[in-house]
Amino acid sequence: MVMKVEKISELTIDRLSVYLRCLDFLTNNGVKQISSQELAAQLNLNSAQIRKDLAQFGEFGVRGVGYSVGKLRDCLKHILGIDRLHKIGIIGAGNLGMAIAEYEGFFGTNYSVVALFDSDIEKINKTTKRGIPILDVKDLAEEIKKSSIDIIVLGVPASVAQSVLDQVVAIGIKAVLNFAPMQFYVPEGVKLKTVDLTVSFDSLSHSLVANEHEIG
Amino acid sequence: MVMKVEKISELTIDRLSVYLRCLDFLTNNGVKQISSQELAAQLNLNSAQIRKDLAQFGEFGVRGVGYSVGKLRDCLKHILGIDRLHKIGIIGAGNLGMAIAEYEGFFGTNYSVVALFDSDIEKINKTTKRGIPILDVKDLAEEIKKSSIDIIVLGVPASVAQSVLDQVVAIGIKAVLNFAPMQFYVPEGVKLKTVDLTVSFDSLSHSLVANEHEIG
Repeated sequence: MVMKVEKISELTIDRLSVYLRCLDFLTNNGVKQISSQELAAQLNLNSAQIRKDLAQFGEFGVRGVGYSVGKLRDCLKHILGIDRLHKIGIIGAGNLGMAIAEYEGFFGTNYSVVALFDSDIEKINKTTKRGIPILDVKDLAEEIKKSSIDIIVLGVPASVAQSVLDQVVAIGIKAVLNFAPMQFYVPEGVKLKTVDLTVSFDSLSHSLVANEHEIG
Repeated sequence: MVMKVEKISELTIDRLSVYLRCLDFLTNNGVKQISSQELAAQLNLNSAQIRKDLAQFGEFGVRGVGYSVGKLRDCLKHILGIDRLHKIGIIGAGNLGMAIAEYEGFFGTNYSVVALFDSDIEKINKTTKRGIPILDVKDLAEEIKKSSIDIIVLGVPASVAQSVLDQVVAIGIKAVLNFAPMQFYVPEGVKLKTVDLTVSFDSLSHSLVANEHEIG
């Protein structure tokens, strides 16, 4: 499958990923065809938005029939690059790093956490509950090469996050996940994705207010 | 400030939250006015989307001048309900629960983690590094009332997440944050927000593929 990968906005990519999760769920439930309206209803989204997002990548839908769940799924996986394996390294074996290493959402995906890195000798050479090794951060460059790690997670405090980022970028890493609430200097060609948990809490906060308005 | 709170899509709410983070950043840098184009450039988004999202809540922009950063910020805070305090309780004092309790992104916000709850006697009556108490989950109902907890975070494995959700819903909690990758039965009037970390990894995966296509 060859297709042109245009510059697509980050929010579109996030939505494609959400569509794919929904298609996975539908597949597990034996659904083979779905209309954009049905998909929209499943996701509590606007069907025009879904059609627009998917139209960027070609013609998937058949008028009156809808989308083939299987084909659309394969295509989204390809666009997102998750039809191949990704090896994840986590820097920082604190609570955050350990939580990511044990994240149940990786089951059945092509993401594999291969190692954590820390400088604390109390942690080095131990493993997580699932047996993922905690290695000396001094061996980071070597291990990234040896294990073909292509994604790094920063599980470190904001105070040291930029310097750790600089280090992994110097090693040649192009994709980094971050949780620290701060602005980074990110060199061109490197993708730093920040998970801002307050955005999720804001959604809950809004629902509490909206509830109140409905009642009041 | 009174405004009609319409039924707004979840993705719109998430975007409002992202706009607000950007406005906070601009405020800290002394910016007082911004056009939707400039805001779009800051966020790497489409300016029409921003105008459309904000138009749902009234007239904020002045043609040729743009938005007042301060006014827009206040309004978004009100819409999101984060102009008031939210007390967070975390169920599960494992790596995930502890990571959320220590999350640096709460600094300077109206979110306050007041307690963690666990059933492990090794953990109960201890505190996190920052001094947040870990309480017996048996006292959950009492503590939620006493501390006015309005948001619960499920920091528990997927295998027990539904039963913990049922418990907190029975106590009267209307807003729950979840990380377990699963489908829940959620009663009407309760908002369950799931953070799916694979969506963030997919964005990184896509960037690796897109890079390749550009080079190749």
